[in-house]
Amino acid sequence: MISARPTIPATRFAERLAAARALAGDAGSSVILVGVGADMRYLAGYAAMPLERLTMLVIPAAGDPALVVPRLESAPARLAPPVAAGLLPVVTWEEGDDAHALVAGLLRAARETPGRGELRVAVSDDLPARHLLPIQQRLGGPTITLASAILRAARMIKDADEIALLTLAAHAADRVVAQIAAGRLVGRTEADVAREVRERLLAEGHDEASFAIVGSGPNSASPHHEASDRVIEAGEPIVLDIGGVLGGYGSDTTRTLWVTGGDPVKGPDDRFRHLFAVLLAAQAAATRSVHPGVACEEVDAAARRPIEAEGYGEAFFHRTGHGIGLEGHEDPYIIAGNREPLRAGMAFSVEPGIYLPGAYGARIEDIVVCGPDGPLTLNESRRELLVVAG
Amino acid sequence: MISARPTIPATRFAERLAAARALAGDAGSSVILVGVGADMRYLAGYAAMPLERLTMLVIPAAGDPALVVPRLESAPARLAPPVAAGLLPVVTWEEGDDAHALVAGLLRAARETPGRGELRVAVSDDLPARHLLPIQQRLGGPTITLASAILRAARMIKDADEIALLTLAAHAADRVVAQIAAGRLVGRTEADVAREVRERLLAEGHDEASFAIVGSGPNSASPHHEASDRVIEAGEPIVLDIGGVLGGYGSDTTRTLWVTGGDPVKGPDDRFRHLFAVLLAAQAAATRSVHPGVACEEVDAAARRPIEAEGYGEAFFHRTGHGIGLEGHEDPYIIAGNREPLRAGMAFSVEPGIYLPGAYGARIEDIVVCGPDGPLTLNESRRELLVVAG
Repeated sequence: MISARPTIPATRFAERLAAARALAGDAGSSVILVGVGADMRYLAGYAAMPLERLTMLVIPAAGDPALVVPRLESAPARLAPPVAAGLLPVVTWEEGDDAHALVAGLLRAARETPGRGELRVAVSDDLPARHLLPIQQRLGGPTITLASAILRAARMIKDADEIALLTLAAHAADRVVAQIAAGRLVGRTEADVAREVRERLLAEGHDEASFAIVGSGPNSASPHHEASDRVIEAGEPIVLDIGGVLGGYGSDTTRTLWVTGGDPVKGPDDRFRHLFAVLLAAQAAATRSVHPGVACEEVDAAARRPIEAEGYGEAFFHRTGHGIGLEGHEDPYIIAGNREPLRAGMAFSVEPGIYLPGAYGARIEDIVVCGPDGPLTLNESRRELLVVAG
Repeated sequence: MISARPTIPATRFAERLAAARALAGDAGSSVILVGVGADMRYLAGYAAMPLERLTMLVIPAAGDPALVVPRLESAPARLAPPVAAGLLPVVTWEEGDDAHALVAGLLRAARETPGRGELRVAVSDDLPARHLLPIQQRLGGPTITLASAILRAARMIKDADEIALLTLAAHAADRVVAQIAAGRLVGRTEADVAREVRERLLAEGHDEASFAIVGSGPNSASPHHEASDRVIEAGEPIVLDIGGVLGGYGSDTTRTLWVTGGDPVKGPDDRFRHLFAVLLAAQAAATRSVHPGVACEEVDAAARRPIEAEGYGEAFFHRTGHGIGLEGHEDPYIIAGNREPLRAGMAFSVEPGIYLPGAYGARIEDIVVCGPDGPLTLNESRRELLVVAG
């Protein structure tokens, strides 16, 4: 079932590091400080545990990057592809050392480079306050900005290996949707179904099962419903929004089911059928609008127009989508006000929803890549309303 | 197998919030801003997903706390115990709103309270830069400090319900160690065993399997080894360091096995037996030293003395332990230089190790609570070297 996974080679990380250095210089930053998280995975291929000890990738605009790690993490750090290939040096600190002072010292060295003026520091967006504030203090309060302003342009454009991993993840999630739709649902709790989703995400090749929203009956009207102890009944919809991580890259798909319990009179009512038809058209229109040069907010508007035309505008109260890659949610966001033009290689969700509080709701979500000539939809499962016995 | 879990009642969260307000005032802070993470779980019982949209608990020293959430998270937020009980109001923001400006506005209101001077903001340690820097900017650069200075004293002391949850988690992890030690190991990869550990952690009642270090042969000498594709052989040790989350509270235990493959000549060699005996004595000495009033660094020293006496000092290069509770690693840290005196209710790991790079290593880890009269060890599994056929 599981196709061979592409591997991101060590040289790719070296290229990304070099590009980050150049972009930092262009942006007037002296250095980028990257904490544990997606930026570190992108630039160094190192998926460190987010623990309290400082692990930090230091990328001076004028100088060589280094990966600062606590000594007892040095063995896993040395397995990161660019480190193993000798393309990125590791600096270790000992238990009890002041790691923040160590990084501040590296930065002061960068500052003393001839021709450099004020120290301007860019930090990765997910760097926690426990590291940001002590480094800020040890440097005497330099200008600090978010590194996403520098890195987002590169990270948003996925290369062929990244798209291959996103595709493997999408297809694995598609298989899980089909398996759940084919199984028993009526009489089980949402939480029990969510547990099965997580198990199946792993069985189908994900390394991590990240989330499993199972919103049944009135809970389908809450977009970020947590799977609860509510028992699923015949004659109601289920919004299934599931995702995980495969080879570092995320899956995220939503399908809406209607369970009849095998009783033909418990099929979807006319209001739900209408609501769903409107939603399906909206999702298709938004996907069709994807093309290089089209603004993100245009894709959002393309989803919103058919929904508003049928009077459901108030019932679609979230953005149409979010970028996806090394993070489940990342740039570009498909939202009103985002004038960023789409470029080939951008990957994001297209996931309009219609929610009628107290009654029910529905959502359809695919991962779409902006191709050179239009949209490439990675998910392949049927997006029509899945009317099943359950 | 799984005993009934205690539930933290809504009133407990209200008490914690009131205590945090008072402590903030005492510390000269105008407000505590708590992002998604352990502090939010502690103060509001709300385990929000750590997504990019701002979710923040705002606790003014003079004023009522509020939970700021994006509208599409408002349904799960309203299930948090103090919110459901009407003890904590929710403020929602709409897609496209500037949530950072909203929080800054709430803070300016706090600032204008008569008699208040400079705005001093404490932020939770895990608040990411993506939220910290925009709020800092919108407030014109106020003094910002880490909230742990305010909250750590309260969070470090576990109440009876918290100790009950830590105990349930510890016992569940103990059962997994026993199951793994009783099963087949030789001929399997570390990664395959780690997968089994994760499945068993869930099967034994954990809600989340957080980590499974399986370090076999020379990999046992790397304290934070990632389970790899190395195949386990007869005649070598395995360091098994596993943990998860149960009812919000963590487990974390390490046992060292030696697998013989059923061949009596493949038992532990004399050097390993000696090393392990020294380690066992060190772990027992450190545990025995736990008593109210004893400094954290004294417990570290108690583990280190017998190891140094046998010439293994350089081979034990990490701290002796870390606090555990709503986070896997939290205050108090059992490390040289930490003069914090132990108090009844503190919970932490006691986990010395001896590592001989290129050869092998061993570690023993229990979760220990400082009781009013001495140590209470939560783990019950045998900590002697587990010589098994595997």
